[in-house]
Amino acid sequence: LQFEVQIIGSNSAVAEHGRYPTSQVVSIHDKVYLVDCGEGTQLRLKHFKVKRSRIQRIFISHLHGDHYFGLIGLLTTFHLLQRTSPLTIYGPVDLQRVIELQLSLGSTNLHYPLHFVATDPDKFQLVFEDEDVQVFSLPLIHRINTTGFVFKEKVLPRKINKSAVEGMQLTPENYQDLREGKDICSADGQHHQNARLTLSGHVPRSYAFISDTLFHPELSAIISGADLLYHEATFMNEHAGRAKETFHSTSKQAAEMAKLAGVKKLLLGHFSSKYHDLEPLLEEARSVFPASYIAREGEIFQV
Amino acid sequence: LQFEVQIIGSNSAVAEHGRYPTSQVVSIHDKVYLVDCGEGTQLRLKHFKVKRSRIQRIFISHLHGDHYFGLIGLLTTFHLLQRTSPLTIYGPVDLQRVIELQLSLGSTNLHYPLHFVATDPDKFQLVFEDEDVQVFSLPLIHRINTTGFVFKEKVLPRKINKSAVEGMQLTPENYQDLREGKDICSADGQHHQNARLTLSGHVPRSYAFISDTLFHPELSAIISGADLLYHEATFMNEHAGRAKETFHSTSKQAAEMAKLAGVKKLLLGHFSSKYHDLEPLLEEARSVFPASYIAREGEIFQV
Repeated sequence: LQFEVQIIGSNSAVAEHGRYPTSQVVSIHDKVYLVDCGEGTQLRLKHFKVKRSRIQRIFISHLHGDHYFGLIGLLTTFHLLQRTSPLTIYGPVDLQRVIELQLSLGSTNLHYPLHFVATDPDKFQLVFEDEDVQVFSLPLIHRINTTGFVFKEKVLPRKINKSAVEGMQLTPENYQDLREGKDICSADGQHHQNARLTLSGHVPRSYAFISDTLFHPELSAIISGADLLYHEATFMNEHAGRAKETFHSTSKQAAEMAKLAGVKKLLLGHFSSKYHDLEPLLEEARSVFPASYIAREGEIFQV
Repeated sequence: LQFEVQIIGSNSAVAEHGRYPTSQVVSIHDKVYLVDCGEGTQLRLKHFKVKRSRIQRIFISHLHGDHYFGLIGLLTTFHLLQRTSPLTIYGPVDLQRVIELQLSLGSTNLHYPLHFVATDPDKFQLVFEDEDVQVFSLPLIHRINTTGFVFKEKVLPRKINKSAVEGMQLTPENYQDLREGKDICSADGQHHQNARLTLSGHVPRSYAFISDTLFHPELSAIISGADLLYHEATFMNEHAGRAKETFHSTSKQAAEMAKLAGVKKLLLGHFSSKYHDLEPLLEEARSVFPASYIAREGEIFQV
């Protein structure tokens, strides 16, 4: 079952060195989520052949331009392309004001329903749930209200082992119990252990998106055990002072967070334009947490 | 003396076929003006090696996204690049609301003074003037309030012909009169015709920027005699109905306007994404007005 993250933009502040401001596509069980949407994201999505029309939900971390200035353009393009399927945006409460003001000044009555769900900058909170996934927002520490997001796969029903149940006479209730992991009692009064008649689903996976934030160890509890952690790494350790001043993290701190939280894999992103070559940031992180990777644009990471 | 227009974006609505939404750089006597600023303009400026920091005044025609969604990103980038020199924006009155809302939600206190001058959507009006140029806004007919802009070079002082005045004893007042085109009377009581002692400056030139508008012949009086006319040509004549419906013009209508207004040269732009190949639009215009050209991105046109 698909659970992957494609990096669309990985730079901070402005586009530079061929890198673009923050944006990612998270694909879970054939559903497509967009996370952050810096200027030019709609073109980068096209460039990477992402089917933009499949995006149904957009998550915005905060209202600094490099995380949302491309949103109004994408929404307008959906309109121009005659989109009719609904779209929901999860983000800071004021995002709705900006978007609605711009749509209204352009006299644009969208062809599709657009919904807003305000994130709470102070709480870890479930913001979306369907049969496959739960998405939580979580407070970060930045110059303005900012949240990260955690995508958690749900525990999936067990699968009936067709060859094991062959010839057995089972009721619909029996099947339902089996899928839910329960043992059953068949029509002939016999007890059957669940594990002998079903195949395990997979272990649910999770992805944590952390951008932008001051390093604060308490965060590790919330994202603990994530299979994949994206963590901003705006600066190198030599600029730790500058990172603190601007409420950002260093590559080393991102790695420390990965270690503290016991995640499986770390993606570094949101790079300052002062770094043309990203290898030193990677080395710095790997010295603390070996399973670190650069969030290179276009690349797809499995969760 | 420099007076030229560089095309930064020439497409309508969305970026397509390698073309970007509307933006132009008008350079007059070493001053740099930006006209319209669709999404991604800041990157296109960089791509074409335009020194963005030299832009002092930005003119926005209307609040459809393909003409201004890139503005907030450019303004923020100026801030991040530590700009301190003032910037003035001329455009619809509501533009200030959008920009100030976005700056305030991002807690961005610009390092440089930003001024807004509201254009009047109903009047032909002087909006800016310095020693070299006058810029006028003029009402267009579109789905929302929209103005075009006319850049007019001022009549420049005549130049003293050094070899002609050699040996003459002239007062500072005499020189001033000569520069202003007046005849003078020298200390010995002799009358001198201005033309014999000065060299002509050049004939003042003008550039008219017309985007987006329904074709309306009355416009020709206002832009009459422009050296260079940029006129939107969203559609071809076969889609004249669609042009009318969306308050746009066809390539043929742009050419008719150029003819009516007696301009020297016509630039076609704001192309619908339905046209990959622009040659047919050019041919259509040239059949009416031979001095027609495609506003190709990156190209510089002399006024």
